[in-house]
Amino acid sequence: MQKPTLSQIAKQLGLSTATVSLAMKENSRISDQTRARVKEALRESGYVYQRSAAGLRKSKTDTVGIVLNNVSDPSFSEILGAIEGELAKVGKTVFLCNTDEKVERQSEFIRKMSEYNADGIVLVPAIGTQATDLEEMKKFSPPIVCVSREISGYPIDSVVADETLAGYTAAKHLLNLGHRRIAAVGGTVNISPFNRRMKGIRQAFDEAGQEFDRALVFECRPVRAQGYEAAARILDVEDPPTAAIGYNAIVTLGLKAGLQRLGKKIGEDFSLIANEGIDELQHTNPPLSTTSIDLQEMGRVVIQHLLSRISDPTAPTKLTLVPTELILTDSVSSHR
Amino acid sequence: MQKPTLSQIAKQLGLSTATVSLAMKENSRISDQTRARVKEALRESGYVYQRSAAGLRKSKTDTVGIVLNNVSDPSFSEILGAIEGELAKVGKTVFLCNTDEKVERQSEFIRKMSEYNADGIVLVPAIGTQATDLEEMKKFSPPIVCVSREISGYPIDSVVADETLAGYTAAKHLLNLGHRRIAAVGGTVNISPFNRRMKGIRQAFDEAGQEFDRALVFECRPVRAQGYEAAARILDVEDPPTAAIGYNAIVTLGLKAGLQRLGKKIGEDFSLIANEGIDELQHTNPPLSTTSIDLQEMGRVVIQHLLSRISDPTAPTKLTLVPTELILTDSVSSHR
Repeated sequence: MQKPTLSQIAKQLGLSTATVSLAMKENSRISDQTRARVKEALRESGYVYQRSAAGLRKSKTDTVGIVLNNVSDPSFSEILGAIEGELAKVGKTVFLCNTDEKVERQSEFIRKMSEYNADGIVLVPAIGTQATDLEEMKKFSPPIVCVSREISGYPIDSVVADETLAGYTAAKHLLNLGHRRIAAVGGTVNISPFNRRMKGIRQAFDEAGQEFDRALVFECRPVRAQGYEAAARILDVEDPPTAAIGYNAIVTLGLKAGLQRLGKKIGEDFSLIANEGIDELQHTNPPLSTTSIDLQEMGRVVIQHLLSRISDPTAPTKLTLVPTELILTDSVSSHR
Repeated sequence: MQKPTLSQIAKQLGLSTATVSLAMKENSRISDQTRARVKEALRESGYVYQRSAAGLRKSKTDTVGIVLNNVSDPSFSEILGAIEGELAKVGKTVFLCNTDEKVERQSEFIRKMSEYNADGIVLVPAIGTQATDLEEMKKFSPPIVCVSREISGYPIDSVVADETLAGYTAAKHLLNLGHRRIAAVGGTVNISPFNRRMKGIRQAFDEAGQEFDRALVFECRPVRAQGYEAAARILDVEDPPTAAIGYNAIVTLGLKAGLQRLGKKIGEDFSLIANEGIDELQHTNPPLSTTSIDLQEMGRVVIQHLLSRISDPTAPTKLTLVPTELILTDSVSSHR
């Protein structure tokens, strides 16, 4: 099907091509009424604004790429909801990429967004992303802001949860309830928040004059299935733990189901604290205690940082820690 | 930072610009060795292939847009995994859009993918998508294949589960176990699979000579939180149901947690059958029976259809039904 040209549309409306072009760009010199007429005519004719050609000229496409490692993680979809809301306010469209923790796919998407002249990129770095990967991309990429995970030793704007606080608060609460054998489940040393989390947990043990047993750290990819599978390993150690702190929401939900399958009663003979604050933690049985993060706020801060970075590419990089708050349910109880 | 031009790179390598250009396009006239040299030089220099400009010329960008209504639904992420795998084989990159069931956002993304000259689009139509919306987009859009939901009364390639069979099989099994009060939970009449599902359920009731009670249909958006909230409504009806069939996996998982919170023992005093076949159904407690769909296969068929459509835009449209299979666990038992 033949698409009409701009001049054909202008002719049809009895306007100059320049007027139509300005109206398309929402130029205030064109009256609201004319803009509405042009918009309607464009819509009717199926005219496609060649944004890629325009993008080459003005280096701005009102497109932002979001790179996630697991689109099905509900905590990311909550952050995403806030990001989409903020970007809609400034007229930008969101393109997503699901890296499935593959650094190569992450690079390919960032390269493609660069080719399309995207305005910016929000990145949850895939496990194993190195400073050199980012340095490589910096050559061609639009501004990048990291969320949830930062790249250690690399200066890039990042918005992450205060995981040290989360680990400290959760461990301290369980220690106060008399638990001494506390497992940390999910995440790996390749992810920056994991190390901060462990630091917080150790700090609580140190303060309580207790020794933290490194054998109770169960690393795994922070997904539901791996939390489920970790349950058997946790109960299989000598002098098994009586409580666990999960790395994120979904790994803890998986762990909960796995422990229940093996006969544990959560909040009675096993205490469990999750992380993040997604709805599902309250829509499970029993509802799970969590070191809650305001994910909506996190998404808003990310976009603030990205827009600042776009307008001032040379400003110093910022690391923002989003606070966490311990929310308690019946999933924890005193050690007997 | 100044990006090098193609001719600067050619000069540096001691090659003609034409050779470098052909090597970039993987032209077979250029030796593997030279292609590798060019690729390496481009990578090192941070050169960005202006794919948008190239796209305008050759109308092919090796990009496919995927439009989902809820990225956090694990069944979509399973279909997505298969789609990404198939497209990687033919060298295409995937861009996602999360419509959150908003028809307007869906149109905006399809329009943007059109501007970028995407090769094709895979669409899970948002609730309420009308034939006129698709007709409108057809004017400018690359080929579209629908998955999971079709648009009733509109000829477009679609790959959907055999929901009539799923509803029939689930209801028949529960009827055989003596259940008479069976609830259908989730989905709405605006979604095509819902109506086929209800048809299957009614068919099983008719065959059994039983009357299906329309009051036991609980429509809701098929998400976890709404399944959870439906539990109270279901138990609140006069002569409450003893079994339920969930519209998809996540609404059934929410319903399960909600029923358990209200004291129901799944598989003992309440029987539950889910739909789709995601891992989490086996990683919950108890594991849930389901009318399982091979979501990987669904993803593969979608891409077959899309590639056929791209190569032959005038072929007749196809509707493919993916079969479902009843997989039983302890979540169902005889009515007492």
